[in-house]
Amino acid sequence: MTSADVPMPKLLQEDAAPDLAAAVRREWPQAVADLVRLVRQPSVAAQGVGMEECAQLTAAIFREAGAETVEIWRLPDAAPAVFAEFAGGGDRTLLFYNHYDVQPAEPLELWSTPPWEGAVRDGRLVGRGVSDDKGPLMARIAAVRALRRLRGELPCRVKFLVEGEEEIGSVHFDTYVEAYKDRLRADACIWEFGGIDQEGHPELTLGLKGLCYVELEAHGAKRDQHSSVGAIVPNPAWRLVWALNAIKGPDGRVNVPGFYDGIQPPTEAEREAVRRVPWNPERMRQNLGIAAFTVEGDDAAREALLFGPTCTICGLDSGYQGPGPKTVLPAVARAKVDFRLVPGQDPHDIFRKVRAFLDERGFGDVQMKLLSAEKAYRTPVDDPFVQLVAATAEKAYGKPARVHVTSAGSGPMYPLGHALGIPMVSAGCGYWDSRAHAPDENIRISDYAQGIYHMAILLEEFGRA
Amino acid sequence: MTSADVPMPKLLQEDAAPDLAAAVRREWPQAVADLVRLVRQPSVAAQGVGMEECAQLTAAIFREAGAETVEIWRLPDAAPAVFAEFAGGGDRTLLFYNHYDVQPAEPLELWSTPPWEGAVRDGRLVGRGVSDDKGPLMARIAAVRALRRLRGELPCRVKFLVEGEEEIGSVHFDTYVEAYKDRLRADACIWEFGGIDQEGHPELTLGLKGLCYVELEAHGAKRDQHSSVGAIVPNPAWRLVWALNAIKGPDGRVNVPGFYDGIQPPTEAEREAVRRVPWNPERMRQNLGIAAFTVEGDDAAREALLFGPTCTICGLDSGYQGPGPKTVLPAVARAKVDFRLVPGQDPHDIFRKVRAFLDERGFGDVQMKLLSAEKAYRTPVDDPFVQLVAATAEKAYGKPARVHVTSAGSGPMYPLGHALGIPMVSAGCGYWDSRAHAPDENIRISDYAQGIYHMAILLEEFGRA
Repeated sequence: MTSADVPMPKLLQEDAAPDLAAAVRREWPQAVADLVRLVRQPSVAAQGVGMEECAQLTAAIFREAGAETVEIWRLPDAAPAVFAEFAGGGDRTLLFYNHYDVQPAEPLELWSTPPWEGAVRDGRLVGRGVSDDKGPLMARIAAVRALRRLRGELPCRVKFLVEGEEEIGSVHFDTYVEAYKDRLRADACIWEFGGIDQEGHPELTLGLKGLCYVELEAHGAKRDQHSSVGAIVPNPAWRLVWALNAIKGPDGRVNVPGFYDGIQPPTEAEREAVRRVPWNPERMRQNLGIAAFTVEGDDAAREALLFGPTCTICGLDSGYQGPGPKTVLPAVARAKVDFRLVPGQDPHDIFRKVRAFLDERGFGDVQMKLLSAEKAYRTPVDDPFVQLVAATAEKAYGKPARVHVTSAGSGPMYPLGHALGIPMVSAGCGYWDSRAHAPDENIRISDYAQGIYHMAILLEEFGRA
Repeated sequence: MTSADVPMPKLLQEDAAPDLAAAVRREWPQAVADLVRLVRQPSVAAQGVGMEECAQLTAAIFREAGAETVEIWRLPDAAPAVFAEFAGGGDRTLLFYNHYDVQPAEPLELWSTPPWEGAVRDGRLVGRGVSDDKGPLMARIAAVRALRRLRGELPCRVKFLVEGEEEIGSVHFDTYVEAYKDRLRADACIWEFGGIDQEGHPELTLGLKGLCYVELEAHGAKRDQHSSVGAIVPNPAWRLVWALNAIKGPDGRVNVPGFYDGIQPPTEAEREAVRRVPWNPERMRQNLGIAAFTVEGDDAAREALLFGPTCTICGLDSGYQGPGPKTVLPAVARAKVDFRLVPGQDPHDIFRKVRAFLDERGFGDVQMKLLSAEKAYRTPVDDPFVQLVAATAEKAYGKPARVHVTSAGSGPMYPLGHALGIPMVSAGCGYWDSRAHAPDENIRISDYAQGIYHMAILLEEFGRA
């Protein structure tokens, strides 16, 4: 089946906004064709593959959609960012944040259709980036096209910022935002991701944790040695173990002085919002194959998951790792450690504190590099924009939205939210089996149509508000 | 140059035993040819390559040398061991311990001549196993041949035990020794290795440390997870770090109760023997590229190196180890740890104590497997056999032997020494650049001739003593 043959599925809640539903239907063939076109253009930031081409293609799609302004922004050694602005009535501006870069497609052998084909199969569009984040981007552009065709004019100004480094830590994102802050001014922002939960409720997310990702490295002798000299020759694997243990002991507390300083606890409104979203800790444990969480009590575990900072070893690497015994004293040992941060913590400040702590505890020999740094961000749960996105989602899907005060994950929400001082809400067209970052990444065709419909309703109500 | 063209080098101290020197000269072409023949037969225990063939070849060489008895001993799932016995006058028996198995030859690209060719280059014989341990084995057989040809009869009975699993931890060696103890009875044993130090002194070694090599393994969720759940999902890398830190902290002391129990301290005679052998700690640090040992004071460091048990992390393996950041919560973490043991410690007892300690400290979830177990052994430095080997070495090399009370390394000396209750002394024909276990393994041709000469002198004086 080619994309031209993908029939428009019946929309949920078509009667809620029949003229918008009809407009989405008219736009549908182009929306599918453009998404397939975008998926077929690889854009792997980690491998530097297709970045310029995909930025150009994204710009072209904006131009075809009637954008007033389309610009490709550039910084030295950075992937380009694509900016587009659509004229509209009223005095309000809605900003969309998306990214055109995708994760590597490897391992290729685990895909059931080629990752860069954009195949249609079993009611799904399959391909690398179709869910993260080309589908949500195209759903938003299609909504803009549908509304322009229907009303002649958009009900508000609309801006798009589409970056190309999200999958590699948005390394230049804050510089782009800083440089183009005035061009980005808006009243609210729809963030890149989101979707439908297993009970069919649209999921909105208002915040992301920050991140301080470091690599620790210890050195011993200049080459691996026979382990018999372990009696007297420094062992970098032991140095690393001891340094890590100093940072966090078996009680799970981070021992770095000041690590927890300034943390903003969740507000009563945030706690209340969390309680409103169902959570099944027993099913989570079953899915993970674990007997218990590391935090006692399911309520406390949920609070830690959403509102607590973390310190996680992501990798350990030293010496001999093959089968059987090899008596070697390693020359080097490395650990990858990520700290997920919450509002009130600054990744550069945390990095300095960990460094000072290691020095003070006698681990000056353990080197530390900062690999990724992001600050946490949370939009207030009682912001009127949150209510608006939730109300329009319920209108489009027929079920109340589930509002997540924050994700446990991280992302570059802070630079934009902080610089512009606006609410940020994530809403998209994925679902629980979208397999972002994994083989057979996909979105359901019905969710894609539904996502366009929701965005059209939102744009219209946002302009009216 | 083929092996047939390798001229016999001039022996040191030819005048010390001119008839033996002449006998070695007569035996030389065969001694070189047999060593090359043995090197050309791969026998990699770790890969199961050529083991049966090499055992058969070793047996054939014994038969050609006139052994009274040649047997190939077998155990289920074990590499065969070769036993040979030569008739001789007098009532004393000398036992030689060697092994016919070798380390893998990889990485092949780092060899300057093919590892299984047995090439002659720059006064050296080059090939896998030529130093460890086929050269020493053939030097001993050549000495037996030379003496038999010269005197008509050996001055003592001579036995050879040549195992095939030394390079994989001598896994069945104690079973072989137990099963054939009565056949192995002897008055003294020459151990497998040894050579010449950088100042031309022959080096003898009287003992080896023991070994308890374990693998620790911790498990978390059933698959790697996004690290955002690190707030509440058990992290096996942290469990491993904490368990390791419990076993040994930054003070370097092993915290396992009973770990140091029963350790036999070195005797005054052993300490005195150590002091007689020069040691250059500053050069050792320079060679290793380290600023300091982990033990303060060079004397204390030397004592720890020779007489102290160790606990060394040989490998760490968990999660993401590639370049850059990857936010993953690992499903599994592994560490390889070796404990070098000294007389008075038992590897199985140590294993049980570490297990009990981990359980008691709350690390029952950290699995532990025993990968290798050996007990330490030391021959008393004042044993008359030690004096005899040292005196004959000085006679053959013209420089006093340097007697090492023990190596910092491990090996299966205990099963044989303990079962037979006899002194064991290591003396061979390697040198400081023999590159055992490494590419371009080699022995100097002059050392090979000298090793035959020394063994001939030793056999004659042992029979006379």
